[in-house]
Amino acid sequence: KQIVLLPGDGIGQEVIESAKQVLEAVTERFHHTFTYHTHDIGGAAIDKHGTPLPEDTVRACQQSDAVLLGAVGGPKWDQNPSHLRPEKGLLGIRKQLGLFANLRPIKGFDQLLHASPLKHEVVAGSDLLIVRELTGGLYFGTPSERRNNGQEVVDTLSYQRHEIERIVDNAFQSARLRRKHLTSVDKANVLESSKVWREVVEEKKADYPDVEVEHLLVDAAAMKLITNPRQFDVIVTENMFGDILSDEASVLTGSLGMLPSASLREDGMGLYEPVHGSAPDIAGQGVANPLATILSTALMLRHSFGLEKEAAVIEEAVQQVLEDGYCTGDLDVKGGKQVGTKEMTRLVLERVT
Amino acid sequence: KQIVLLPGDGIGQEVIESAKQVLEAVTERFHHTFTYHTHDIGGAAIDKHGTPLPEDTVRACQQSDAVLLGAVGGPKWDQNPSHLRPEKGLLGIRKQLGLFANLRPIKGFDQLLHASPLKHEVVAGSDLLIVRELTGGLYFGTPSERRNNGQEVVDTLSYQRHEIERIVDNAFQSARLRRKHLTSVDKANVLESSKVWREVVEEKKADYPDVEVEHLLVDAAAMKLITNPRQFDVIVTENMFGDILSDEASVLTGSLGMLPSASLREDGMGLYEPVHGSAPDIAGQGVANPLATILSTALMLRHSFGLEKEAAVIEEAVQQVLEDGYCTGDLDVKGGKQVGTKEMTRLVLERVT
Ligand SMILES: CC(C)[C@H](C(=O)O)[C@@H](O)C(=O)O
Ligand SMILES: CC(C)[C@H](C(=O)O)[C@@H](O)C(=O)O
Repeated sequence: KQIVLLPGDGIGQEVIESAKQVLEAVTERFHHTFTYHTHDIGGAAIDKHGTPLPEDTVRACQQSDAVLLGAVGGPKWDQNPSHLRPEKGLLGIRKQLGLFANLRPIKGFDQLLHASPLKHEVVAGSDLLIVRELTGGLYFGTPSERRNNGQEVVDTLSYQRHEIERIVDNAFQSARLRRKHLTSVDKANVLESSKVWREVVEEKKADYPDVEVEHLLVDAAAMKLITNPRQFDVIVTENMFGDILSDEASVLTGSLGMLPSASLREDGMGLYEPVHGSAPDIAGQGVANPLATILSTALMLRHSFGLEKEAAVIEEAVQQVLEDGYCTGDLDVKGGKQVGTKEMTRLVLERVT
Repeated sequence: KQIVLLPGDGIGQEVIESAKQVLEAVTERFHHTFTYHTHDIGGAAIDKHGTPLPEDTVRACQQSDAVLLGAVGGPKWDQNPSHLRPEKGLLGIRKQLGLFANLRPIKGFDQLLHASPLKHEVVAGSDLLIVRELTGGLYFGTPSERRNNGQEVVDTLSYQRHEIERIVDNAFQSARLRRKHLTSVDKANVLESSKVWREVVEEKKADYPDVEVEHLLVDAAAMKLITNPRQFDVIVTENMFGDILSDEASVLTGSLGMLPSASLREDGMGLYEPVHGSAPDIAGQGVANPLATILSTALMLRHSFGLEKEAAVIEEAVQQVLEDGYCTGDLDVKGGKQVGTKEMTRLVLERVT
């Protein structure tokens, strides 16, 4: 298998190096051969090539079986004009690779739950998956422009029916592998696109009779995520709603530094990345938490390669490291032994081999 | 002053009756003369007139100085075609009256804070105001339609520059009356409309040098509302982001049943309503909590009529009722004496006269 590594900016370099070591150890143990190619994206690519997404990077990703991304962005590029901003690289690669399904599993770790802003009785036992449509909606719709001498501005929320169908199918399939409950989030009392969204979900229901379906307005969803996160299993929603709700959900369990994500193409090819950012303030100090990126490699093994056992080995190792009382500086594990990136990586490696 | 009452559906009738009594008592005490006219909206209007927003209702509101609304909606109309749904009445009246500024103050009551899903140390002391643009953006932008035989659908997020300017001005002025901190929320790394939004805020800053301004992306705002609600004073944002964030914020303090709102026109005319819904499950039982609607009349006195002292009398009376240990069934006041709508109204009346 060909894997492209895109370290990106800030702590990206450190966490990618760490995750690659874990991936190598696990694939070696199970006799798979993975080959790695490193390319530039984001601010690093702007500095070297004058663009956040060099063609060379796109080509390499297109020829690969999976991509592992660190993080992009930093204050250095914050004042750049918008086509020279690191996040354009991220948006570009999603669109060019056709990564339409963003999967964000959110599950608390017992050792971290006390760091949640929510009361223990509210958040304990939460285990949800947000399936966000990633290449449509307001993000890429046209026109997106100023008019009338700058007196007016429009953006366009646009969906092809088949784009809605494929993400809804993906979510139903994910629900099947979990607790068989799907919450479709829309704003059908206002948006025409949400009415179509709701119709598609209603149509697809027939193909998944074993999955229970519920519709929820996005404003109500934003409330219920906080008041009763346990009520959710799989949530499926369009791009912008998914952006907001998945970030909202990411802080519920007190494990922001631990959350992985997958962005998938229809054939299973995917880009995997931690949910956290590039943390420029601690970059290069050897203290970054590599666990979310390591957990992203588990998602890669599962979703792009169907290697469930291998994925589970990584997830159990991470779980075990926390249970054994180790943590990085960003994690608030009570009485935890604080270690750096390299030592944390070694501790995980010890447990996967 | 001419006040239009729009009870609407469910518990709307009961809470409007209650709030009207309080408003009458306070205006009498301070020698103001208010005249009341009741009209139909929402499901009640669909049943009686075949439309959620009769012309007669619009005309009455246009001739009034302020409108007090109960709530609209209920299962009875949930399957109606979209032009015959109660919330169309609400959207219609906002647009027709030009109510561009939605103000949602969110402040915890000490007696209720323990009912918050957030930990006490996270939520205690939160006191924020969300200023939501209410007549632009995705809600009314055109085209909003299906295309290509239903194979495609678009909605349009559209703003006139002056629409952004007036809501930003409103928010700066609100911040001035509070802790002088303004957080402008957008998605400037993706949307052209957000870039314009950010430019307008940057321009307006010069007119309010005493107000500190911060820009926050909507996904980050959704996180910070939960992890650190105290960091916010005034938040200003466009219509859809405001819909989501204000509902998210409304559950933070455990006081959902206590939250009022104001929707204002440029000349100060406004529509006032509780944040909660029509609660069809308890309608007509005499147990509805009238306090959010009563607090909405305080916002009316303050924002439409500049009667600050009168507004404060109502707010203090409500505060006092809670301190004296009274509550309605929806409120979780520890050791509280539970009373019905009429008795709660009487308790407030006792304290405003
Ligand atoms: C950086 C930004 C464009 C991006 C998005 O909005 O999709 C980010 O917030 C995310 O969720 O991955
Ligand atoms: C009923 C609905 C159309 C409305 C909105 O989205 O504006 C409601 O959620 C609100 O916030 O008042």
